[in-house]
Amino acid sequence: MKRFEELTVSQLLAALASPDPTPGGGTAAAIAGAMGTSLLLMVTGLAKSRNNLDAEKAALATARAALEPLSPALMTLADADTQAFNDVMAAYRLPKATDDDKAARTRAIQAALRGETEVPLETVRACVEAIAQGRVVADYGNQSAASDVGVALGLLKAAAEGAAANVRINLTGLKDEAFKSATESETARLLAAIADQHSR
Amino acid sequence: MKRFEELTVSQLLAALASPDPTPGGGTAAAIAGAMGTSLLLMVTGLAKSRNNLDAEKAALATARAALEPLSPALMTLADADTQAFNDVMAAYRLPKATDDDKAARTRAIQAALRGETEVPLETVRACVEAIAQGRVVADYGNQSAASDVGVALGLLKAAAEGAAANVRINLTGLKDEAFKSATESETARLLAAIADQHSR
Repeated sequence: MKRFEELTVSQLLAALASPDPTPGGGTAAAIAGAMGTSLLLMVTGLAKSRNNLDAEKAALATARAALEPLSPALMTLADADTQAFNDVMAAYRLPKATDDDKAARTRAIQAALRGETEVPLETVRACVEAIAQGRVVADYGNQSAASDVGVALGLLKAAAEGAAANVRINLTGLKDEAFKSATESETARLLAAIADQHSR
Repeated sequence: MKRFEELTVSQLLAALASPDPTPGGGTAAAIAGAMGTSLLLMVTGLAKSRNNLDAEKAALATARAALEPLSPALMTLADADTQAFNDVMAAYRLPKATDDDKAARTRAIQAALRGETEVPLETVRACVEAIAQGRVVADYGNQSAASDVGVALGLLKAAAEGAAANVRINLTGLKDEAFKSATESETARLLAAIADQHSR
């Protein structure tokens, strides 16, 4: 299987539109997050003022350094999201002839479902970090690129919210209550952070 | 220049991240809209119930027929958005040595700026239409794909709002008050339609 970043946009759209369950919303969210991150990176290359104040340049350089790893990380998460779904399907197909089979199958399903929450949670984390850096970019980047920053933040927010919805849906099948509770808490905290960023 | 749909996702991200002004937010919004539309198309292939009620199948088929042209249309708009920006830059570079030059340059700039509002407005229209179909897909599509529909609607809303912001920013440079007023009215009406769709 090719990595999603190797597909042409046309192939990606065809893959999303096909009735196969993967790639689905989790993968689309991660790729949209990578697009938003990349747009923010563009604006870090455009200082606000003609005289390029040192403080502005330093703030944008710091934001750029924080953003740079997030775009490839989100593309890795796009692949991992599809893999996690396929792992769940594979676990459900395990044999259940004997009691040992059944116990092993249940453990495999639980482990796979856990992966299916951890991947989109990592997507939420990456998007929230990009949004935090986007605030710096909005403050110090060139105002002629304000609409690019706006599009970037909108895509990142949609990506984070979409990935968070995937976390929550996939949590419902898990039995480990401590993990469920911790994951739900972190998801809620991350979504609240986005709401804060957006209301500024 | 290649069409954006011919680029790999990796090349697209690199183009967005480069300090060149294009591709910018308008192109990213259109591509995100195409991704959202494609995800909705996936769900039109998954009927809600196992017995595939005729009414459900018919509703999903109608939504599918309406969605199918929107994804390639949005990819064409992704290209057109970058072209429209480049046309504005080219118009600003026209000679202004004589009064005739200056008048011709002003006309060219106004025509190009108008194109730079018409393209993102068309993106908003396409996304709003996709969101309207997405409501049908949410109602009649398989509930196991509910999070895919949620991601799709989030991406389409972000794409529409981002494109609308581009319409408004680009309108500020135009002198044709009747066109400005009509375009602003339609933009506001389309954004209100999205808010309605989302609050349901």
